[in-house]
Amino acid sequence: MVQINDNFTKLSDSYLFTEIARRLKAYTASNPDAPIIRMGIGDVTLPLPDACIKAMHKAVDEMSQKDTFRGYGPEQGYEFLQDKIRQFDFKSHGVDINNDEIFISDGAKSDTGNITDILGNNVIAVTDPVYPVYVDTNVMSGRNIVRMPTTKSNDFVPELPKEKVDVIYLCYPNNPTGTTLTKEQLKVFVDYAIRNKSLILFDAAYEAFITESNVPHSIYEIDGAKQVAIEFRSYSKTAGFTGTRCSYTVVPKECRYRRQCTKFNGTPYIIQRAAEATYSEEGQLQVRQLIDYYLLNAKIIRESLSAKGFEVFGGINSPYIWLKTPDGDSWAFFDYLLKEKNIVSTPGAGFGASGEGYLRLTAFNTKEKTIEAMDRI
Amino acid sequence: MVQINDNFTKLSDSYLFTEIARRLKAYTASNPDAPIIRMGIGDVTLPLPDACIKAMHKAVDEMSQKDTFRGYGPEQGYEFLQDKIRQFDFKSHGVDINNDEIFISDGAKSDTGNITDILGNNVIAVTDPVYPVYVDTNVMSGRNIVRMPTTKSNDFVPELPKEKVDVIYLCYPNNPTGTTLTKEQLKVFVDYAIRNKSLILFDAAYEAFITESNVPHSIYEIDGAKQVAIEFRSYSKTAGFTGTRCSYTVVPKECRYRRQCTKFNGTPYIIQRAAEATYSEEGQLQVRQLIDYYLLNAKIIRESLSAKGFEVFGGINSPYIWLKTPDGDSWAFFDYLLKEKNIVSTPGAGFGASGEGYLRLTAFNTKEKTIEAMDRI
Repeated sequence: MVQINDNFTKLSDSYLFTEIARRLKAYTASNPDAPIIRMGIGDVTLPLPDACIKAMHKAVDEMSQKDTFRGYGPEQGYEFLQDKIRQFDFKSHGVDINNDEIFISDGAKSDTGNITDILGNNVIAVTDPVYPVYVDTNVMSGRNIVRMPTTKSNDFVPELPKEKVDVIYLCYPNNPTGTTLTKEQLKVFVDYAIRNKSLILFDAAYEAFITESNVPHSIYEIDGAKQVAIEFRSYSKTAGFTGTRCSYTVVPKECRYRRQCTKFNGTPYIIQRAAEATYSEEGQLQVRQLIDYYLLNAKIIRESLSAKGFEVFGGINSPYIWLKTPDGDSWAFFDYLLKEKNIVSTPGAGFGASGEGYLRLTAFNTKEKTIEAMDRI
Repeated sequence: MVQINDNFTKLSDSYLFTEIARRLKAYTASNPDAPIIRMGIGDVTLPLPDACIKAMHKAVDEMSQKDTFRGYGPEQGYEFLQDKIRQFDFKSHGVDINNDEIFISDGAKSDTGNITDILGNNVIAVTDPVYPVYVDTNVMSGRNIVRMPTTKSNDFVPELPKEKVDVIYLCYPNNPTGTTLTKEQLKVFVDYAIRNKSLILFDAAYEAFITESNVPHSIYEIDGAKQVAIEFRSYSKTAGFTGTRCSYTVVPKECRYRRQCTKFNGTPYIIQRAAEATYSEEGQLQVRQLIDYYLLNAKIIRESLSAKGFEVFGGINSPYIWLKTPDGDSWAFFDYLLKEKNIVSTPGAGFGASGEGYLRLTAFNTKEKTIEAMDRI
């Protein structure tokens, strides 16, 4: 008789965004004309950069002709894209990464999830609040999870865990808090990992939003990080690829876990050409415009809420604003914003116990709706 | 200190296609002008159907406009594609499948691999010879594997395993042998699974190549299969999507493992539109032309080798021809074909012990090269 991995039964039934959708549906059912503004889920709203559109039309045409048709591509991704990544995303920040250390895939969610396949029975550390996928994928594998509270009381800088941990997830700029670590603060974790032979899984999905100079763009800017860290990047928020799907993972040669990292999916040729186009002169400019548009929204949210007496964090190097809720109850404030202001947000408690008393707003809506939402509050 | 899943170390170092590539490279290094014809790896050579090209251009244009741009799509896939799958791939064969039982993904390799996440410590049965991915993904998870020999001596119909098994992989039309099971033969496995509460993972990636009427297109044509079987389909060989990446998995409601099956990736909107286009009137015709082209190649190989006194199997409902090697040594005959005839094939021994003495040829090359290869032998 087939046995099911019983760790699956430990997954909490109500996934955060499912519960939000449920409450939204219940509200709009009785209030069908409510002018809802969505600032909850982290999905983008602007269309793809024109450079990507052109690149995809060209790639589609190539797929229509026998001489230029592409079948199975290299599993790690095409070299044309690895070349650009190496040069633009790392070399430009003083980091040397080789093409064969870059694994192109279809989304940071899959990558951070699939990487857990290579792990044994390790103790995992995550920040609290945290992106739920890190926790769920390890719960599925039955691993113990240690939480590092990240709140106003420690200036959103997690402390090293007291117990020894084997694997540490770090996401900076952070989802959900929108806060960052400086190079010095990140170095504390790299040094810990070297000392304890731990592995750092560094999610840099929001790297493109960094505006301040002492915020590292890659963990490999920290000495020694190549020995202990795997880094994840995504085009989802950088170039609006949430529905187009492209990401990559860097596994440096120095990192001794490298040989096991082969369970990555191939990514469509057409999509890899679109990702490549984000690095052309035209593409770089257009991506910058996208990011600046969302960063302006973040600034509008941050300044508007501050002026109204709210305590806000993030939103400077990030599309996320982390707001202290007036009465300390995340879900109550979520309901208030939904029902009284018709604004959909994400309650901080959904990201972990230390997220209670906070709320996440995203800067991914249009400028017009962002301004309207701020006027309503 | 981080522990690595030590089952990874049990994976055999020399993956079949890596070894083939190594031998090919060594040969062409000393014989750079050899007119090599590739009939080894199962990659397609014809361009995408025009209906898919048109659908992708349209979808790319949609991604360029704010009003038609698509961000995150439904994780299980878009309903426009599920609708077509339900109607064309199942209803037309008398099988009722609901949209919410269809999970769209990026390739049967990922799907058959990822499904092992949901399994506990089961005993797995595979045919021998077998597609190596089924074995490797279970070795990674430390599961015991029972092999069901499938050779000329049992007419390529595997016998039920003597020991009790929990999960059975079946791929029909088969890779690598190109042979099929009739409904009656497949029913034996479905009945076994019902009796023993086992799970069947049915890989129907080559379904489009079926030409004979008593060969089931879906395992769900067998009574009771919905309780015990998950079915995998792919557009790779059907519509030339090896570099475009789209597939789907069917997990019927009756199959009690359903709730765990949520670790699927989103697939790009543009690619799902391309897959949808294979079901339009134009698309159906073009896909049929693709399949017929490869099936004609298969016929040429089969008839030509038969006429020359070789014993051949498959190639009627499949793009694969399974050839009995004259002296019983797969790798020796592989080397002979490579060095004396400049033809790349796949030695049967690479698919399992029972594949020794056989060799796989694929029908995915051009008609001209297929004829030339046959002239050389």
